[in-house]
Amino acid sequence: MILKNDLILRAAKGEDIERYPVWLMRQAGRILPEYREVRASLSGFKELVETPERAAEVTIQPVDLLGVDAAIIFSDILVVPEAMGLPYQMIESKGPWFENTVRTELDLKKVEFDFDVEDRLAYVLDAIKITNKELNGRVPLIGFAGAPWTILCYMVEGHGSKTFSESRKLLYTNPTLAHELLSRITKVTIQYLKAQIKAGAHMVQLFDSWAGILGTEQYAEFGLKYLEEIASAITEVPVTLFSKGAITSVEALAKLDCNTVGLDWNMDLVKIREQVGESRTLQGNLDPCALYSSHEEVQNLTNKLLDSFSSKRHIVNLGHGVYPDVDPEKVKTFVNTVKNYKIK
Amino acid sequence: MILKNDLILRAAKGEDIERYPVWLMRQAGRILPEYREVRASLSGFKELVETPERAAEVTIQPVDLLGVDAAIIFSDILVVPEAMGLPYQMIESKGPWFENTVRTELDLKKVEFDFDVEDRLAYVLDAIKITNKELNGRVPLIGFAGAPWTILCYMVEGHGSKTFSESRKLLYTNPTLAHELLSRITKVTIQYLKAQIKAGAHMVQLFDSWAGILGTEQYAEFGLKYLEEIASAITEVPVTLFSKGAITSVEALAKLDCNTVGLDWNMDLVKIREQVGESRTLQGNLDPCALYSSHEEVQNLTNKLLDSFSSKRHIVNLGHGVYPDVDPEKVKTFVNTVKNYKIK
Repeated sequence: MILKNDLILRAAKGEDIERYPVWLMRQAGRILPEYREVRASLSGFKELVETPERAAEVTIQPVDLLGVDAAIIFSDILVVPEAMGLPYQMIESKGPWFENTVRTELDLKKVEFDFDVEDRLAYVLDAIKITNKELNGRVPLIGFAGAPWTILCYMVEGHGSKTFSESRKLLYTNPTLAHELLSRITKVTIQYLKAQIKAGAHMVQLFDSWAGILGTEQYAEFGLKYLEEIASAITEVPVTLFSKGAITSVEALAKLDCNTVGLDWNMDLVKIREQVGESRTLQGNLDPCALYSSHEEVQNLTNKLLDSFSSKRHIVNLGHGVYPDVDPEKVKTFVNTVKNYKIK
Repeated sequence: MILKNDLILRAAKGEDIERYPVWLMRQAGRILPEYREVRASLSGFKELVETPERAAEVTIQPVDLLGVDAAIIFSDILVVPEAMGLPYQMIESKGPWFENTVRTELDLKKVEFDFDVEDRLAYVLDAIKITNKELNGRVPLIGFAGAPWTILCYMVEGHGSKTFSESRKLLYTNPTLAHELLSRITKVTIQYLKAQIKAGAHMVQLFDSWAGILGTEQYAEFGLKYLEEIASAITEVPVTLFSKGAITSVEALAKLDCNTVGLDWNMDLVKIREQVGESRTLQGNLDPCALYSSHEEVQNLTNKLLDSFSSKRHIVNLGHGVYPDVDPEKVKTFVNTVKNYKIK
């Protein structure tokens, strides 16, 4: 199927673009009343993730309603540990909760790493196929997975945490086990991303949500190493790496075999552009809270961000997922400001 | 009273030292069974904070039991908003909870900023006096307060948060109100720190726990500005500024009128030393999770940190508060490794 809008793919590959492409992390989600309606008709978040037709429906909503230049498949990074035999619940206003965790060699033995990803995660792949069929080439579809370090964090901790000290403890008490687990997560993640691409994902993003809790050396050893393995293995489509909070590692991250580096709103885009030159596309990085401003101020802040670009290698996004209580009209102002901006 | 061990004060002032001083953030707390015993005999955390004799007792415990080179008064940064008329509860395993928040001009009007700090926070000042009497000059006593930005975070949000998006929202929707609130918190904080010094604190530290959630520009405007005001006003004793997570602002932070800059474990101590030269003392910054290692590895990691110092201007600490499930014996290994280290 021929894409009518392939702006984001060209931007990712460093090809020429007429204007900057724009999308938002968590664009399919609670900011849209239309999403909340679908969500309310089901038993919960997980049923939505696991029902391909409905997942496809909410994936497409922001394309129709917000006018973004890409869809991202509605899913969750935790489907991977679940497929490995660690089921989780999503508890309202508390977040994910795993019954079993992986903290010892014995725990590791109980985890399945050798299974048919296309079978066990068929619901995600089906959602991708349905989405593409219904999008009919309007915009590209982004596939994604959690980075191995972040997936390890949940598998070891069993739930969200401010410090993930249980996970970080493992790096000191049993680094061999940590590497073994990371290595196995990496293998499954490569299979999973390749399956998403086969199903129709036009580009893929790795989310390393908890990158920022590791010091530079530890992140190189337990984070970047495995991101590199994945990024090198994915040759079919452009790859985006987003290591939230890894301010001291972003230069090293940009050296990995990827097309695009996602920046959070604390990262200095201008400085990072100087460091990476034209070798990588940068994605981001408006402060998600900027969308709480007036429409005029959203325009100003967005234009200020765009004015700071000295290159065409940019995909515009927030520096983090859009917050659930943001007015969708403000998101439209953000999107339209980017679309109306003339590249210098 | 003459101090028998004034190592930390000399290190803070950049004077000569025989060995590096060492203490731990949250050293008076749940890691010690002796602390948990005192805590269990009372109705809760707040009763302990508000009972000077018991607060003094747990303040001194780590001096006796861990051999640290300083005591830090057992208290909480939230006593300040409470003194302003915003009472809070400390909910077990959830954290602080304020009934009322400050999000509008009307809310601000209900907050008290003009009160007698020495009267309303007498319980902290009494705890300081009792502690010094009982310490009898063995080590200096550190006083502290929350930085205005972090206090604003709690006053606006009303509780802990991963994103503090309500607080950050205010910076976009009503920056005038944010500055008004920050400015008033700053004035009270100066009075409070001066009262602590008058009561006997030998040095003071400002904790900006949520510095890292702001981008560089916003932190300069809403964070550093007020830290500077406080640091400049405190001329009596050495001042330490600790802005957790503010990796992109630490160079600017070090330029403020302080003696010591606290570093979290993600901050690159060697690079920051190059930036600040000999103008400031650096405090930190072993990863708190390093204390989960074996005794031998704790020694190795501590020695590695100490070997990275190229100056005498260091106060050794963790890069964050010690985690509650750390073995106190490991803390002793950390402390003793520092004490036995010969400065090159």
